[in-house]
Amino acid sequence: MKVLIVLAHPEPKSLTTSLFNVTVDELKKLGHEVKTTDLYAIKWKATIDADDFPEFDQEKERLVITSESRKAYNERKLTKDVLEEQEKLEWADMLILQFPLWWFSMPAILKGWVERVFSSGLGYGVGYSPKTPHGSRYGEGAFKGKRAMLSITIGAPATNYNKMGVNGDIFDILYPLNHGVLFYPGFDVLEPFLVYRTHRFTEERLQETTNELRERLKNLETEKPIPFRPQNAGDYDLQTLELKPDAISPDKKGLGLRVHLKEQSY
Amino acid sequence: MKVLIVLAHPEPKSLTTSLFNVTVDELKKLGHEVKTTDLYAIKWKATIDADDFPEFDQEKERLVITSESRKAYNERKLTKDVLEEQEKLEWADMLILQFPLWWFSMPAILKGWVERVFSSGLGYGVGYSPKTPHGSRYGEGAFKGKRAMLSITIGAPATNYNKMGVNGDIFDILYPLNHGVLFYPGFDVLEPFLVYRTHRFTEERLQETTNELRERLKNLETEKPIPFRPQNAGDYDLQTLELKPDAISPDKKGLGLRVHLKEQSY
Repeated sequence: MKVLIVLAHPEPKSLTTSLFNVTVDELKKLGHEVKTTDLYAIKWKATIDADDFPEFDQEKERLVITSESRKAYNERKLTKDVLEEQEKLEWADMLILQFPLWWFSMPAILKGWVERVFSSGLGYGVGYSPKTPHGSRYGEGAFKGKRAMLSITIGAPATNYNKMGVNGDIFDILYPLNHGVLFYPGFDVLEPFLVYRTHRFTEERLQETTNELRERLKNLETEKPIPFRPQNAGDYDLQTLELKPDAISPDKKGLGLRVHLKEQSY
Repeated sequence: MKVLIVLAHPEPKSLTTSLFNVTVDELKKLGHEVKTTDLYAIKWKATIDADDFPEFDQEKERLVITSESRKAYNERKLTKDVLEEQEKLEWADMLILQFPLWWFSMPAILKGWVERVFSSGLGYGVGYSPKTPHGSRYGEGAFKGKRAMLSITIGAPATNYNKMGVNGDIFDILYPLNHGVLFYPGFDVLEPFLVYRTHRFTEERLQETTNELRERLKNLETEKPIPFRPQNAGDYDLQTLELKPDAISPDKKGLGLRVHLKEQSY
């Protein structure tokens, strides 16, 4: 496979960066081709703004990102840094995002990579047709056929992210990323590779984690992705975009994150 | 009240910015004191890195953000832009974050505001004691007694964010922000102010939305916050940080976001 790995950590000697290095090394050993983007090293511009669209005239026009983004993407008139990332994505069969969980999400620099690189016409706003009135997304889209995986270092222990854990279930916490950032533009999303309790990481745990990561990477091509429901395959009503009532059994309709409320009627 | 409003939108003529302006105007009319931070206007540095800690020696040391952040915060040796935001937060009784929902979360520039301003010793890592072995957080912490609210513009219609909506339930989608970013450091979190279906926003809808927002702002002081469970008040086991089994009735243990999976055993 051709694999693009995007790294978001400011410290070359961090645990996150060392897992990134292990990933590059192991994937090459396995015979994959690897490209990388080290966001901090290249001082990636994290903020999407008018400068992203060189043909846009700030003095005269009102910036509407969706339309400027679409125009600039279609005409290949985005900035060089963004075009390079889009070319890597086009090249890749698989995308790995390697980062520390900061405030229950990806670091700002990586969020800004998504905002700037997943242009309208690429990351969203594609594939409208009479049969797909809301476009090709959630399992379809520009990245259909490619795989993606989050590889995350997390300060707290795993129990804090259990179904009953104080931080909330890790599946739910990562849902905006796995479902919203990766499945939305068409990636098949693999289960994330998660390393918990990263404070005071011993040499022994580093060795264990490294071994676990190397094992995991052997299965990237064949592993079954998270079974998210595609938008346009029948489970959702294509008028309302709501899940059809018969798609889940009534006893499965639950509280989800509302377990963390004092009053469950909220 | 003293209210700090943080705005994250690059376009002064956007709907988001006009709602921000309405908020400032209405709060002043109601007799509140208002301070603002317009992140795009001040070209806020979105990325936390070694430059955030002027006393840190990049050549010699390994950057561990938690410890550098704590040291620099305690000694008030953070950068000027961060210190100014921290002073505004200290001053404020209430924080409002005004932004468009991009990729199911806040814009990178605002995420970077959180990462840089919520230092260790302020936003996290506070209040350890024998009675609070995991610190003062989730309902306690430096911002206890202050209120906070998200004010968000959202492209898609509300039905897409219903319990069965294709994007996922908006309560769950915003949980990493409401619970993880705001409740964690101690804010009482008010229900978000949400404006859906922002594309092709008519003059009539702008008027309606503005009126709705002005009405809502009248109740900021008295409104009941989202009833998140505090960490240290008995609902969570203070060994494991898991919700105690008797805190919710068994019939309420549900699927949550897993409704969006094809196989519910996942």
